[in-house]
Amino acid sequence: MAPVKVFGPVVSPNVARVVLCLEEVGVEYEIVNVEFATGEHKSPEHLQRNPFGQLPALQDGDLMLFESRAISRHVLRKYKGSQVNQLGESNLEEAALVDVWLEVEANQYDPAIAPIIYQQILVPMQALGGTPDEVAIGESVGKPRKVLGVYEARLGKRRYLAGDAISLADLRHFPHTHYVMGMSYVAVFDELPGVRAWWQDLMAHLAVRKVTTMMDGCSG
Amino acid sequence: MAPVKVFGPVVSPNVARVVLCLEEVGVEYEIVNVEFATGEHKSPEHLQRNPFGQLPALQDGDLMLFESRAISRHVLRKYKGSQVNQLGESNLEEAALVDVWLEVEANQYDPAIAPIIYQQILVPMQALGGTPDEVAIGESVGKPRKVLGVYEARLGKRRYLAGDAISLADLRHFPHTHYVMGMSYVAVFDELPGVRAWWQDLMAHLAVRKVTTMMDGCSG
Repeated sequence: MAPVKVFGPVVSPNVARVVLCLEEVGVEYEIVNVEFATGEHKSPEHLQRNPFGQLPALQDGDLMLFESRAISRHVLRKYKGSQVNQLGESNLEEAALVDVWLEVEANQYDPAIAPIIYQQILVPMQALGGTPDEVAIGESVGKPRKVLGVYEARLGKRRYLAGDAISLADLRHFPHTHYVMGMSYVAVFDELPGVRAWWQDLMAHLAVRKVTTMMDGCSG
Repeated sequence: MAPVKVFGPVVSPNVARVVLCLEEVGVEYEIVNVEFATGEHKSPEHLQRNPFGQLPALQDGDLMLFESRAISRHVLRKYKGSQVNQLGESNLEEAALVDVWLEVEANQYDPAIAPIIYQQILVPMQALGGTPDEVAIGESVGKPRKVLGVYEARLGKRRYLAGDAISLADLRHFPHTHYVMGMSYVAVFDELPGVRAWWQDLMAHLAVRKVTTMMDGCSG
């Protein structure tokens, strides 16, 4: 039995974020499904793993963790090989820039993109089924454009967000961006050559390719 | 001239979060005011510091950082003395638990508390002045109760969120909690003995006492 278990379906962007880090470091892991559609994430069993009743959780030996962004740091810190320095923690300036762009992902990118993902991907998955709220989507479409304008200025000068090497700051953008790329009204990515090149680089990254297949397999 | 400059008024919770970490490690710093009321945070000069036009920014020698949560990590990592281990980075499990509760602060506590702070503290500060939206406040009051219920279960078993020693996970809660404590409708803290004891411990912490005085001096 694998010592590392991820609780939650990889179709969830927050679960995919963790699985991507596990693939990045090459550690053996097992995915234990928790049914979002039937509300299993609110069951007493799952509340023992995550008292907020959300996905994912990660069991690593005796340690039970939740919050996908915290789990990502833990996985990279604990299981990194000699070639993986995705937190930049060996250098103060690198680490600070990785942290800045991790927070940009959480506080600027995610709030701009997540409402669209929520309506398009998660609402139809809920217990009673659901129809995406086109008004909410319409209100949200301008936000990614504004945020991505800042990304374009940044990525015009360097290959990745925190510098010239890929970091967790880039990887964290993958699950939401993957879904947005399948939606017609976020053609804004195509207007921004720096952002487009960055995304193409990210898509070519081995762990990203593998998790892409897993996510598409789940939702297909 | 101090090599470390914080841009923004300490009355802003995000600025206070950074100042608290600077006080915690005892590094010399200078606060450079950026007038929120006149929109100076959207000026070309400030956009050079933070392309999203938000407060605070931190200049540390040649390094310019933004996003208060990233700056907090940088300050503790770079300037920690031998007695400061607020990121828990010397131990994988401690670091993971600090990270979990940092994410809980950002993703559970902040969204529950920030709308109240925004209406009560920031709306009246805006350029044209403003009146708190009591409907928005009313809708928000139930949320802290739910989140703090999880905190109570956690703090019933240990003194601080990540373990028995104070960490950045606790300190990060200070600026918002400080404001909420002055507001009548968050009596929910008084109903929860574990949470109340935690907050009293935090309030007695030296750096917290100092920043409390600075915040109150600003807003008085």
